[in-house]
Amino acid sequence: MKKIVLLGSTGSIGANTLQLAADFPDRFQVVGLTAGSNNDKLLLQIRRFRPQVVALADEKAAERLRRQCRSRRDLKDLKIEILSGMEGLVRTATLDEADIVVSAIVGSAGLVPTFEAIRAKKPIALANKEPLVMAGAIIQEEARRRGVAILPVDSEHSAIFQSLSGQRRGDVHRLILTASGGPLLDLPLAKRRTIKPAQALKHPTWRMGTKITIDSATLMNKGLEVIEARWLFDIPPDRIDVVIHRQSIVHSMVEYRDGSVIAQMGIPDMRGPLAYALNYPERLPLGLPALDLTKVKALTFELPDHKKFPCLGYAYEALKTGGTMPAVLNAANEIAVAAYLSGRIGFLEIARLIRKTMDGHVPQAVKNLEDVLEADRWGRERAMKAIS
Amino acid sequence: MKKIVLLGSTGSIGANTLQLAADFPDRFQVVGLTAGSNNDKLLLQIRRFRPQVVALADEKAAERLRRQCRSRRDLKDLKIEILSGMEGLVRTATLDEADIVVSAIVGSAGLVPTFEAIRAKKPIALANKEPLVMAGAIIQEEARRRGVAILPVDSEHSAIFQSLSGQRRGDVHRLILTASGGPLLDLPLAKRRTIKPAQALKHPTWRMGTKITIDSATLMNKGLEVIEARWLFDIPPDRIDVVIHRQSIVHSMVEYRDGSVIAQMGIPDMRGPLAYALNYPERLPLGLPALDLTKVKALTFELPDHKKFPCLGYAYEALKTGGTMPAVLNAANEIAVAAYLSGRIGFLEIARLIRKTMDGHVPQAVKNLEDVLEADRWGRERAMKAIS
Repeated sequence: MKKIVLLGSTGSIGANTLQLAADFPDRFQVVGLTAGSNNDKLLLQIRRFRPQVVALADEKAAERLRRQCRSRRDLKDLKIEILSGMEGLVRTATLDEADIVVSAIVGSAGLVPTFEAIRAKKPIALANKEPLVMAGAIIQEEARRRGVAILPVDSEHSAIFQSLSGQRRGDVHRLILTASGGPLLDLPLAKRRTIKPAQALKHPTWRMGTKITIDSATLMNKGLEVIEARWLFDIPPDRIDVVIHRQSIVHSMVEYRDGSVIAQMGIPDMRGPLAYALNYPERLPLGLPALDLTKVKALTFELPDHKKFPCLGYAYEALKTGGTMPAVLNAANEIAVAAYLSGRIGFLEIARLIRKTMDGHVPQAVKNLEDVLEADRWGRERAMKAIS
Repeated sequence: MKKIVLLGSTGSIGANTLQLAADFPDRFQVVGLTAGSNNDKLLLQIRRFRPQVVALADEKAAERLRRQCRSRRDLKDLKIEILSGMEGLVRTATLDEADIVVSAIVGSAGLVPTFEAIRAKKPIALANKEPLVMAGAIIQEEARRRGVAILPVDSEHSAIFQSLSGQRRGDVHRLILTASGGPLLDLPLAKRRTIKPAQALKHPTWRMGTKITIDSATLMNKGLEVIEARWLFDIPPDRIDVVIHRQSIVHSMVEYRDGSVIAQMGIPDMRGPLAYALNYPERLPLGLPALDLTKVKALTFELPDHKKFPCLGYAYEALKTGGTMPAVLNAANEIAVAAYLSGRIGFLEIARLIRKTMDGHVPQAVKNLEDVLEADRWGRERAMKAIS
C-alpha cells in the first residue's frame, strides 16, 4: 500500500490522481490533500478518501472547512487535521506517513512545498512544471543529495523517462519533445491579435486547466517543458528539440547515438503517465482504450513556426541565459496569462509582456531558493506594472 | 575487443557485419567466416579481415579456396584454416576464440551451426530467422539451459528488444510487428498472378537478398517473423499483431498493460540493429543520417489484407498448430520461392504450394533437432513433388 500526499487536489491532475486511488484501493491510500480554496470539491474528496491531513493555502477557507467538518453530520466522525497557509502546505508535503508526494499545484505556488518534500526525502511524482523551471539546478542538487527520485507526470517527460528505460545515459543523443501545437496552430499571424480566451481554450487533444491550455496556445507550455526536461534528464538545451505532432499520440522521443529513436505512444490520457509515476516501475492495467494505430492512420510531424510562437524561443533563451532568468520568464508568463484570461490584454501581448520583462531583467546567479523567489517576485511586479 | 564468427559472410547481413568490423577496428575482430560457395567475394573478405578459420558448405569450393590461398601471393602469408561441409561450418560456429556468433546464413541451412554455437555457449546475434522458425522451442530451451543470450538482428525484433529494455516482462501486453507491405502491396489481386520476379524484387524501403525480398512480397517474411518473435520473446501468438507501415520508420512496437506503447524508429539501415546486437548494451556512433520525422511527414498504419497475403495467416496457423508444422511451412516456402525465382511457378502458386504442403502434413511433436530436420526434408520433398 503506497501512501500518497496530493499537493493540488482540486485541479485536473489532482482529480486524475484521486481517480487512480479510487480504482486501485489495494495499492494507493490518500493520506494528505492540499488545495487553494476550492471547498466544495474538497469536501467531496475528504469524505471519499478520508485523509489524515488537509491543508488550504487560504486561511479563511481553512477556517470555513474546519467549521464544516465540525458541523456536518457526514464529516463529524472524521479524524482530520486541517492546516493552512504555506506552513500547512509544507507540513502536509512532508508528512511522515507519506510514501510519495504528487506535486500538482498549478504554477509557482508549488515550488516551496515540492522543495520541502524533497528535503524530507519523499519521492516526487512531478506534474507541476514550475519547480524545475524556476529552480531546476537547486532542486536537482537537493534531490541528488537526498537520493530522492523525481518521477515525471507530464506526458512528454513521462514518455522520455519511459524511452530512457534500460538504456545507457552516455548513448543519449537528443530528446525530442512533441507538441500538439495547441488550439491556434493553423491560425494566421494576422488573426492572432483578436483571439478571445474562449477560442484559445479549445485544446484539440488534451483536457487540462486554463493556465496550461493558454500556455499550449502560445507554445510557452512546450518552452517550459524544454526547461523541465533539461533538469529532469540532465541534458543541455541544444540537445532538446521540439516537433509539432498534431495527433498527440507520440508523447515524446529519445534519439540515441546509433541513430535509433525510442518513442512512447498512447492515447492522450493523463492517467497513463500519472499511474506510471505513482506505481513505478510496475505498470497498472488502467482499462484505457488501446491505441489502434490503424484507426489513427497517420502520425505527422512539423517544425514549429517561431514567428507564430515566439514564446518557445524565449524559453530556450531563458534556459541558456540561466540563473534567475527562467524564474522571471515564468513569472511574467503567469501574470500575462492571467491578464489575458481576465480580458486585460490581448493574445499577442502575452509574448510581448514576457519579452519586455526579460529584457528588463539583469540575470543573477541562483544560490538558494530565496534567490529564485525574489526573481519570481521581481518578474511579477515588473510584468504587472507593464500592464497597468 | 570482441571476436566475431560470421556465419554467412557473403550475404547482405554478412556484408553489413564486415562493414561494422571495418568501421570499428578497435571493437571488433573477425576470427571466423563461413559461406556457401561464393569464392570471389570471400577472397576479398579473407584478405581484408584475415580470419583464423573459414568454412565453406561446398567441398569443391573449399578445395578451390585452399588452392587459391596457396598460390596467390597476396594470400600466401595468411595463417588460415579452410574447412568444409557441415562439419566445417559447425567447427567455425563453435570456435574457442569467438565471443559472439553472427548467424546470417540464409534459410534453413543456418539451423545446425546456430544450434551448435548455442551448445558451445556462444552469444548469438541472430539474423537468420529459420532456426527459431523451425525449432524455436528446442533452441530456446538450449539457450536457457546454457545461459546463452540470443540477440535479434532483424530490424523488427531488434525494435521489440529495444522497446522491452528496462521494462517488466509481466507488464507486456502485445507485440506489434510492422511490415512495409513489400513491393506488391497495392497490386490488385487480379494482377498478382502474372507478376514477374524482377517486379517482386523491387522492395520499396529495404535492400535485402532475393529470398527475403520475395518473402516480403508475399508477407511470408512477416509470418516467419511472428514465429520468431513468439520464441525470442516468449509470448503467445494471439498477442503478436502485424500492421502495415509503408515508411519502414517504426521498426516495431510493444504495447504494455497500462496502454502505453513503446516503439523503436530509425531510417531503414541494417547496421543499426546489427550494431546493437554486436555491441549490446552499448550503442555505437554509426554516422547514419539522423531520422528527421519532419521530413518523413506522415507515418501510416493499415491492417494487412489477408486475401492478398494468405501466407501471413498460414504462418500464424503453423505456429498455433506447433510441433513440426512451422518447419514444414518454412520448407515449402523455401522450395516455392526458389521455384518462383527460377520461373517454374507463378507468384500466386507460392502460397498455394505452401497450403497444399501444410494440408498434407500430419504434425508431430518435436523432441530434438533430428525431428525438425526430418520435417524439413519431408516438406521439401513434398513441395518439390507438387511442383513437378
